[in-house]
Amino acid sequence: MRSETDFTLTCPIPISEYPNILLAHGGGGSLMHRLIESMFVKTFDNPALSARHDSAVFEVGGGTLAMTTDSYVVSPIFFPGGDIGSLAVHGTVNDLAMSGARPLYLSAGFILEEGLPMEALWRIVSSMKLAADDAGVQIITGDTKVVERGKGDGVFINTAGVGVIEHDRVIAPSCVQPGDVLIINGDIARHGMAVMAVREGLSFESVIESDSAPLAELVLTLIDAGIEVHCLRDLTRGGLAGALCEIAGVSGCAVEIDEARVPVSDGVHALCEVLGFDPLYVANEGRLVAYVAGSDADKALRLMKDDTHGRGAAVIGRVLDEKSGVVNVVSPIGAKRILTMLSGEQLPRIC
Amino acid sequence: MRSETDFTLTCPIPISEYPNILLAHGGGGSLMHRLIESMFVKTFDNPALSARHDSAVFEVGGGTLAMTTDSYVVSPIFFPGGDIGSLAVHGTVNDLAMSGARPLYLSAGFILEEGLPMEALWRIVSSMKLAADDAGVQIITGDTKVVERGKGDGVFINTAGVGVIEHDRVIAPSCVQPGDVLIINGDIARHGMAVMAVREGLSFESVIESDSAPLAELVLTLIDAGIEVHCLRDLTRGGLAGALCEIAGVSGCAVEIDEARVPVSDGVHALCEVLGFDPLYVANEGRLVAYVAGSDADKALRLMKDDTHGRGAAVIGRVLDEKSGVVNVVSPIGAKRILTMLSGEQLPRIC
Repeated sequence: MRSETDFTLTCPIPISEYPNILLAHGGGGSLMHRLIESMFVKTFDNPALSARHDSAVFEVGGGTLAMTTDSYVVSPIFFPGGDIGSLAVHGTVNDLAMSGARPLYLSAGFILEEGLPMEALWRIVSSMKLAADDAGVQIITGDTKVVERGKGDGVFINTAGVGVIEHDRVIAPSCVQPGDVLIINGDIARHGMAVMAVREGLSFESVIESDSAPLAELVLTLIDAGIEVHCLRDLTRGGLAGALCEIAGVSGCAVEIDEARVPVSDGVHALCEVLGFDPLYVANEGRLVAYVAGSDADKALRLMKDDTHGRGAAVIGRVLDEKSGVVNVVSPIGAKRILTMLSGEQLPRIC
Repeated sequence: MRSETDFTLTCPIPISEYPNILLAHGGGGSLMHRLIESMFVKTFDNPALSARHDSAVFEVGGGTLAMTTDSYVVSPIFFPGGDIGSLAVHGTVNDLAMSGARPLYLSAGFILEEGLPMEALWRIVSSMKLAADDAGVQIITGDTKVVERGKGDGVFINTAGVGVIEHDRVIAPSCVQPGDVLIINGDIARHGMAVMAVREGLSFESVIESDSAPLAELVLTLIDAGIEVHCLRDLTRGGLAGALCEIAGVSGCAVEIDEARVPVSDGVHALCEVLGFDPLYVANEGRLVAYVAGSDADKALRLMKDDTHGRGAAVIGRVLDEKSGVVNVVSPIGAKRILTMLSGEQLPRIC
C-alpha cells in the first residue's frame, strides 16, 4: 500500500519550465536528453544506466550480458524497406550490437488499437519473424494489450533485448581517444526520408527505401578481427549529428567531420533540399558510426565493405587532440562550422 | 531491403473470422489466448516461448536466466494503492518470480502523449523508483517516445525484466500433479475493483486499495525452504479463474476449488455484487496461486502468512486425479459448477 505522502523525492526538472510533455521530448534532441538525464537517469540512479550507452551491461551467472529496450511508434507503420515490426527487431538488435554484444533474445510487447486490421497485425508479426531469423535472434516472450479506438495509433511495439558479450573489449563513449578514426557503414538519412515521403504522400522517380537493417554481424566481424573499436553508436533519432554530439559530450573529445565524405544518395539529397532538411540530422535505422584506433582504420573499412550492410562504408572524420567536446564539420568548400544537437526532432515518430 | 513478396508465411488465424482487433483481444480471456497461441507463439516458434509461462527461461554464460515483458496501459494512471509506474514494476517482477527467478534488472520504455503534465510523469517515475527499491531490482535501461495528442492516452509503460534462477526446481504448468494443493496469498479482486471504482467515480465508506505488490521475496522464501512448489501463477488479467483455467489447460489436470475458502474482502464483495462482477474473474496485481505438493501445504501456508504480502494466505483447493483439464468450483452451499475462461475481459485496461 502506497499513499501520496510516500512521494518524498523531489522532481529534478523545474515543472514550471516545461509543465507539459512536448513532441520534442521524444525527438532525440537536447530536450529529450535533458528529460532522460535529469529525470530518469538521476532518479533510477545506478551504474549501468549512468553509463548512458545504447545497452546496459551487467554480470550474471559468470557471464557478461547486455540489455536494452525501445518502443516503436513509427507512423506510418508500413514504409518502403520495412515496417514497424522489422524496425522493432533491427533497432533493438542494433542497440545490443553497439555494446559489442551478440544479440540472443528479444521480448515483444504489443499495444494494439481497437479496430486494427488483423491483416496488418499479421504482416507486422511475420515481418518480425523474418527480421529475427535474419538477425539470428529469438523472440521468447511477449505481451498484448488493446486500447480503445482513439487511445492509440494502430500499433505500438516495444522490444527489449538481451545479448552476451563474449570478449574483453570495452566499447563505450568513455573509451574514445584522440587519433580515433570515424567510420560509417553507408549512406545516411534514408530511413527518415523514406518515412517522410510516405507520410507526406510524395512520390519520386525512384522510391527511397529505409536503410533499416541488423548490424550485429558487421560489428562482431570487426571485434573478432581484433580491430581496436573504442565506441559504436547507431544513428537513429537525431541522426549522425545527434550521435556525434552525444558521444563528444560524454567523452569530452572534440571531433572533426569532413562533410564531403559523408555519403548521401542523390534521391535523399534531392528530397532533403526540397523539404529543407539537413541529412546529418535525419534518422537512420541501419547505420552506425564506429570510433576505431587510427592504425586499424584501413582494415576496419575493408571489413565493413565486405559485409552486406557495410558496402557503402566510408571514413568521415577523426577525433582531435582537444578536450572541448565540440563536433566540427568541414564543408565541401572548406568552411568550418560547429554541429550542435537540435532541441527537438525534425521528424516526429520516425521510429 | 524487404518487399511485400517476401511475406510468404500464411496467417494462422482466418482473417475473415475477426477482421479487426477487438478490445477483447487484450482482455486475458480465450480470444486473447487464441491470438497469442495461433499468431505469436506459432510464428515466433521457439521452445522458451512455447512453454507458455509467465517468463521465458534460457541458459547463458553458465547461468539460468528468466526474461519477461509487459506493457501497461491501465486507465486511470493513478488509483488507490498504486499507479501505472508501481504497477509496471510489480507486474514484471512478479512474472519473473512465477518462474522461480530472482528479479534483477528491468528496462522501462515510456510512450508519452503530447500534453501529459510533467508533474504526472514525475509522480510515476518516482513511484517506479520506490517500487524498484522495494522489490530489490534496478531499472538499468530505458526509452522515451512521444506521440501526438490524441494518438496515445497519457502514458503507456513497457517494462521487461531479467532474473536469475538459482535453484534446480522446475516451476511450470507441466509440473502440476494430482494431490497438489492450491494456495493463494490473500484476498482477491482488489486491484480490478480499485481501478473500477475510480474509473466509474464511485465512492464508498472505505476506499478499496489495489493489491499491487512485489511477490518475489515470498516465492523465494518458499523455494529456499525446500517447499515442493510445482507451479506458480500471478492472478492478473482474467483473475483467479483465468489462471486456473490456463494451467488446467496446459497441464491437463483437473482441479477443485472450494469457493467459500477464497478470501474476498467485504468491500470488494459488495462492489462486485452491485456491479455484477464475479470476483473470481477480476484482475489482481499482487496475488498468486501456488500449486504445492500436498505434504508441504501446511508449511507453505505458514511461510506465506509470515510474509508481508501473504498474511491473508489460504488453501483454496486441490488437483484431482483426473486428466480432464477441468476447473470445478464447489459453491458455499455445496453446488458444483465448471469454471471456464471468459472470451474477453470484464474490465478493459486494468493493467
